[in-house]
Amino acid sequence: MKNKESLNSSYIVYGINNCINFLSYNTNCNIRSISLEKNGIAMKNSQINNKLSVYSDKIDLINNKDFSSKFNFKHSQGIVITFSGNLYADLYQDKDFDDNCCIIIADQIKDPQNLGQILRTSECAGVDGLVLPKHKSVQLTNTVLQVSQGAFMHLNIYSETNIVSSIKYLKSKGFWIVGVENSIDSKEWHKIDYKGKIAIVVGSEGEGIRRLVKESCDFLTTIKMHGKINSLNVSATVSAILFERQRQLSK
Amino acid sequence: MKNKESLNSSYIVYGINNCINFLSYNTNCNIRSISLEKNGIAMKNSQINNKLSVYSDKIDLINNKDFSSKFNFKHSQGIVITFSGNLYADLYQDKDFDDNCCIIIADQIKDPQNLGQILRTSECAGVDGLVLPKHKSVQLTNTVLQVSQGAFMHLNIYSETNIVSSIKYLKSKGFWIVGVENSIDSKEWHKIDYKGKIAIVVGSEGEGIRRLVKESCDFLTTIKMHGKINSLNVSATVSAILFERQRQLSK
Repeated sequence: MKNKESLNSSYIVYGINNCINFLSYNTNCNIRSISLEKNGIAMKNSQINNKLSVYSDKIDLINNKDFSSKFNFKHSQGIVITFSGNLYADLYQDKDFDDNCCIIIADQIKDPQNLGQILRTSECAGVDGLVLPKHKSVQLTNTVLQVSQGAFMHLNIYSETNIVSSIKYLKSKGFWIVGVENSIDSKEWHKIDYKGKIAIVVGSEGEGIRRLVKESCDFLTTIKMHGKINSLNVSATVSAILFERQRQLSK
Repeated sequence: MKNKESLNSSYIVYGINNCINFLSYNTNCNIRSISLEKNGIAMKNSQINNKLSVYSDKIDLINNKDFSSKFNFKHSQGIVITFSGNLYADLYQDKDFDDNCCIIIADQIKDPQNLGQILRTSECAGVDGLVLPKHKSVQLTNTVLQVSQGAFMHLNIYSETNIVSSIKYLKSKGFWIVGVENSIDSKEWHKIDYKGKIAIVVGSEGEGIRRLVKESCDFLTTIKMHGKINSLNVSATVSAILFERQRQLSK
């Protein structure tokens, strides 16, 4: 459940796919402007044109030179949407979780690329929500939204002050908590049972999960490295684990 | 097998982890210079200092201001290594492949971030090599090397003119070819047997595998999407498949 009463921030999305996704599924956010490059790629795209037909009062048609100097994104493809709204949901208002609900807890991810990729992969892998700590973590920045390819619109994203309290709450709702951490107690990732309500905790790049958060986990799991660099990206880790969960659920 | 006689290109790597990795495993490349920021993070790092002790003639100590204006990388951490060498191997010189050898064939990947992440994940997942088409594909650029976190040093990377010929060659060496493509004939990714010599073909972002390459595959596989955006990143796809392979190999 999205909490509409808290802070309305301003965001942008750009590029054809991202903007089609946004225009197709937006229900909560207020579109401020749609900047369209005159004779740009987006303007010539029929899907974009279909979507834009109801937003004629919001469209700002800009010539090529001014568009380029205003928006220097690499892949704008001639369309930039500015909108405002609250993209966060309230964990404690979500009282009923599905039987096979899956929530990712991202403990202090710093890199917006990583968080964006985690959101994208999570949405594709049937995850329901993601918990972010309010402090020492990247939040939903424009880069995160862009990298997520629209995934942020389909996930409940909870920004929480105290992750240990969030874990306690999830446990009270019947969740098992799986921490991804290379530790002596860790089972291999495919030996964990992901059926039922599951929260998967991943730690920050380099530092892993914080001690108190780790101690709140019911199980720890790890992915054995088979090379020399010993450095699997956190979003690649999430992908391997979430699709192992889907493999188990499909049986 | 690295072919030392072909073109020697010039490359850079930067950042503490990347540089430690490079200095630890480099055997083929010629280090041209090691730029070190005076009193920077790298200079204070004991692992870096240990590695650098044998390269005193290559070190260029640069004050903070000049270093920043010369290298505007976000995460240089005060160290940049310039080197030259041939990072590519020759597929047709590799005559003996291990029984469980795994090769990724990246058919026209365009984004250096994606190729870099594929290399990084592949190395962590015990892949032996990667085939890149010479044309319409990103090659080993500095961005790819950087994102790969040193993985490029531990994989045989083959740059090939004709991917269909590479596949024929691999088949003659006992490889099964698995194409990752959403098609009516595709099996789910966890229903493929990844034991034995396997080449996994992934296509370009958006366009997938080319027709003739697809027709050369023995099997097609796909990962079912569970959300609305229907857009799993190619490197996330590779991660899910490669660790499913490792799960099967561990049984």
